[in-house]
Amino acid sequence: MGKTFRSMWMPFLMPEELPGPDCPPIRVRLLGEDLVAFRDTNGKIGLLDRYCPHRRVDLFFGRNEECGLRCVYHGWKFDVSGQIVDMPAEPENTRMKADTRIKSYPVIEWGGVIWAYMGDPAHMPERPPELEWGLVPPDFRFITKRLQRTNYAQGVEGGIDSSHVGILHSHLDAEHPERPFRQRQVSPNLAIPYLASDTAPKFFVRPTDYGMAIGARRNASDTSYYWRVTQFLAPFYTMIAPIKEGRAYMGHAWTPIDDENCWVFTMTWNSDRPLSQEELDHGAVHSDVMNDGTYRPLVTAETDYGIDRLRQRLHSSTGIEGIGMQDTAVQESMGPIVDRSRENLGSGDAAIVGFRKALLKLATQWEAGGVLDVAHHPEWYRVRSTAAILEHGIDFQAGTSAATTVS
Amino acid sequence: MGKTFRSMWMPFLMPEELPGPDCPPIRVRLLGEDLVAFRDTNGKIGLLDRYCPHRRVDLFFGRNEECGLRCVYHGWKFDVSGQIVDMPAEPENTRMKADTRIKSYPVIEWGGVIWAYMGDPAHMPERPPELEWGLVPPDFRFITKRLQRTNYAQGVEGGIDSSHVGILHSHLDAEHPERPFRQRQVSPNLAIPYLASDTAPKFFVRPTDYGMAIGARRNASDTSYYWRVTQFLAPFYTMIAPIKEGRAYMGHAWTPIDDENCWVFTMTWNSDRPLSQEELDHGAVHSDVMNDGTYRPLVTAETDYGIDRLRQRLHSSTGIEGIGMQDTAVQESMGPIVDRSRENLGSGDAAIVGFRKALLKLATQWEAGGVLDVAHHPEWYRVRSTAAILEHGIDFQAGTSAATTVS
Amino acid sequence: MGKTFRSMWMPFLMPEELPGPDCPPIRVRLLGEDLVAFRDTNGKIGLLDRYCPHRRVDLFFGRNEECGLRCVYHGWKFDVSGQIVDMPAEPENTRMKADTRIKSYPVIEWGGVIWAYMGDPAHMPERPPELEWGLVPPDFRFITKRLQRTNYAQGVEGGIDSSHVGILHSHLDAEHPERPFRQRQVSPNLAIPYLASDTAPKFFVRPTDYGMAIGARRNASDTSYYWRVTQFLAPFYTMIAPIKEGRAYMGHAWTPIDDENCWVFTMTWNSDRPLSQEELDHGAVHSDVMNDGTYRPLVTAETDYGIDRLRQRLHSSTGIEGIGMQDTAVQESMGPIVDRSRENLGSGDAAIVGFRKALLKLATQWEAGGVLDVAHHPEWYRVRSTAAILEHGIDFQAGTSAATTVS
Repeated sequence: MGKTFRSMWMPFLMPEELPGPDCPPIRVRLLGEDLVAFRDTNGKIGLLDRYCPHRRVDLFFGRNEECGLRCVYHGWKFDVSGQIVDMPAEPENTRMKADTRIKSYPVIEWGGVIWAYMGDPAHMPERPPELEWGLVPPDFRFITKRLQRTNYAQGVEGGIDSSHVGILHSHLDAEHPERPFRQRQVSPNLAIPYLASDTAPKFFVRPTDYGMAIGARRNASDTSYYWRVTQFLAPFYTMIAPIKEGRAYMGHAWTPIDDENCWVFTMTWNSDRPLSQEELDHGAVHSDVMNDGTYRPLVTAETDYGIDRLRQRLHSSTGIEGIGMQDTAVQESMGPIVDRSRENLGSGDAAIVGFRKALLKLATQWEAGGVLDVAHHPEWYRVRSTAAILEHGIDFQAGTSAATTVS
Repeated sequence: MGKTFRSMWMPFLMPEELPGPDCPPIRVRLLGEDLVAFRDTNGKIGLLDRYCPHRRVDLFFGRNEECGLRCVYHGWKFDVSGQIVDMPAEPENTRMKADTRIKSYPVIEWGGVIWAYMGDPAHMPERPPELEWGLVPPDFRFITKRLQRTNYAQGVEGGIDSSHVGILHSHLDAEHPERPFRQRQVSPNLAIPYLASDTAPKFFVRPTDYGMAIGARRNASDTSYYWRVTQFLAPFYTMIAPIKEGRAYMGHAWTPIDDENCWVFTMTWNSDRPLSQEELDHGAVHSDVMNDGTYRPLVTAETDYGIDRLRQRLHSSTGIEGIGMQDTAVQESMGPIVDRSRENLGSGDAAIVGFRKALLKLATQWEAGGVLDVAHHPEWYRVRSTAAILEHGIDFQAGTSAATTVS
Repeated sequence: MGKTFRSMWMPFLMPEELPGPDCPPIRVRLLGEDLVAFRDTNGKIGLLDRYCPHRRVDLFFGRNEECGLRCVYHGWKFDVSGQIVDMPAEPENTRMKADTRIKSYPVIEWGGVIWAYMGDPAHMPERPPELEWGLVPPDFRFITKRLQRTNYAQGVEGGIDSSHVGILHSHLDAEHPERPFRQRQVSPNLAIPYLASDTAPKFFVRPTDYGMAIGARRNASDTSYYWRVTQFLAPFYTMIAPIKEGRAYMGHAWTPIDDENCWVFTMTWNSDRPLSQEELDHGAVHSDVMNDGTYRPLVTAETDYGIDRLRQRLHSSTGIEGIGMQDTAVQESMGPIVDRSRENLGSGDAAIVGFRKALLKLATQWEAGGVLDVAHHPEWYRVRSTAAILEHGIDFQAGTSAATTVS
């Protein structure tokens, strides 16, 4: 899959990580490669091999100065394109300066995050996918980043798995402690009674040009269904419908750090207006992370995600605080790469199956020609998630096409 | 050996670890398997695979409720027998509920500890071995548990190795600091002068139906010997004689967590009366452990077991406090699995050799028929340890048969 | 290379680590072997296998007493030669006492450090190499020790690589912050303007009987060169010229702990007078280490060597404090064993190339006869480093032969 990901621009840094010209370089690990990123004197961003090609010294310790990053051992200096621009311990006329290069990758800033392209220069897409959160003005969106210690695919599978929402994230009715658990479970949002009353929705999975649309159907009335439409967008984006009508959209990007870790970018946005304070607060729920550049969550596996067994008994399904941490807890608890040969998938896992097929389709397309169609059609990403009550007999894609299209 | 151990009930938890109905589930590792234990609404104990068969989420985070443990991700719920009793995200009539199972093992509570049986259901012994500490009333016994970071066999070998007692556990005569070490060494208990005066006892090893009886013979008078009789009881129980006549008995169980760790259960008990405060205090010496559910000793290899070199010079052989920690220190210092090919065993190691032969005998018996005789004869375990002065010519087993038999 | 190193005496301990007779034994790891060192009642030093040959208990926990180290488990006792002198749990007349041995290595104290010989006893050199710091009176020298978490060769390569000095260790001219970095760099010592003004010296490498002499040539005037002469002495010693005329000499020994760690001994000495306070202070710069017997530097990779990005911008090339830590940071940042297949060596790396050739020559000589000439010619080590201005046309070895010879 690594080669597939390399065919596309990938979000990997927050702008705050490289706050200004000549700021300190930072360590980056992406698709299993150890790299160093820096912002040069002109504000351009470089993404280079972590190790100097001379004697393999870590360029994290390098000096960021005058449009280049200089290794402190013997002073070799590289610009953002990977060109060597100074070799002080070698004679002025050395051919080594032109002949030696450091590995470097193109970087752009767009849509509130920083993106890298690690693929074949000949096939570099002109721009990143036109996800709606990237298109709107800065105050319409709020983006957080956190480290998850699993393969990216476990994250994507959680993002498209709407059957867990009414269970993992449920609260408990405090007024009837004597009732059985199932009767006390309350959906995360009282505005959607269908989520808790029908915990076993029927899933309809449709391959699309951008990836896959998933319709989760629940009974609404004798003649209508409540549909939630969730998208998977290649290679690792997900979108979920607002939990209340008119509320902000939410989506994720699950960028692979390596086989056992990923960055979770969580986007909250409105199409047509700045985010409200309530919407900002809700988005911030997904980012209780260390303030030391690691983006490691404050609570982790080492402390059992702060599970509070009394809260689990009385107030919530998990006893773990925060929707983001509830997701992380179960996804990380499977191990960094879950043993899928030991799963038992049911009808509630139709989206999971669809996602795996979509990945295989991407890999097959890449194998055939070294290019992904989706990488060169950023406009295919102009979709959004929604929820709707539709009469029986109406197709969920047809019935929501206006709501799910970004103009 | 794992298969051999599976043929028998094994102690693995203290009742305090599952204190009441619907208490929090706990992680268990046993014979290298990762499991979760819980006590249900009716007080029954379940021991299940750690990971949900649906999507492999860790059931430690599960909710213990209404006679079952529920996975918090999609709500699959299991009873103590491993049966799936609820699948909220699947249709009511799904066949998956009956067709899917989680691995589970039978558990019983008896004799002050909780036991598991991990073997073939067809050959499950009716009850655990009838060790005397299990037969007496609760106030006649005191049981502690601690983690040891070695293979269980290193522990058993320490438990039956009575030749180390007068050396590892010796104090130093404080009144004659000018004398050589060997002349200053004082046995752990002044009541048994033979232990320090004769540090090289002669060992007699006798295979028995339950395992092995070891007689350690020291000179007592011109016509008599001082005998200490120690037992190894398959597959990992040991017993040592009281260090003072009329004092409580002591024994150990060394339950394998995995190849490199074991639980050390230390039992102190009387046959015919409640333990005195002095006996309780002596038993407690073996359990200076963390109070966080890990049963990890307070002092560990990371701090060199708190060795005090001045105490080692002036007051004790090791400078390490506590008989239990002295044993742990030397046994762990060999590494988690000692390289037995590099040992040099002497005549003082006859019991070690006998133990290894007894293990091979067990393994051979299991290989031949998949059943161990000893597993189905719990009454064979009705033995106890003793010490006695016997005239020359009297066989140690014959001369102590009354004292070593539990009626 | 391990076998080559075994042909020679190697410094491995500071005398302070075994401060007096019967002091506590200490753990030693050398050439990948786990050992224990102790100083006996007569002041003699023993270096034994870490593990008792009886049951493999760690002899670090042993009792150091009456001319021997006693295992605390069953009391086996060893003298400094590895002879077993007591077996209390065995019969008096056992043949095991004579037949069993523990691995032991000869140790001597000389020149302010403690040396071990781990090679064939038949070819043991009479004495360690006669390095000048070992020959002078104690108050003429100052020796420190610190742990470096790399292969020893990375250290040696740093020690002989004089082209990094004017870059890695440079300060910045504080009076002209507007100037480009290269014009603000100031050599570590203003007394040698040549170092900063000519950062690309030409290197001349000459094999010698003791290893290799390296001449680094910089322009001094129209008719003269400034030469710095640095030595590599087999198998892991380096010497660097004083940075100011009349100042103390400096040298290093890089003793391999194992493939991924080494001890860095740093020697500061005068040939003909006690060290001044200034010289002592300068030498101490190389030893900001923990005071707990580990000799681990106070700042490590875990805290990025305390890099201060503001200092890096304004005051020094690295933002890391101390020449020793600057060297350690870059050398450790390459990883414990740098991937030399991915280096790009330039003309400034001639000494590195020469060192690798010298190592191969040593290994080849050892392979041919199991003996190293250099091991049996301690007098070959009577050299020292120097710096000199020589007229064009004068050979650097000829021109500095008096200054580099220890009489």
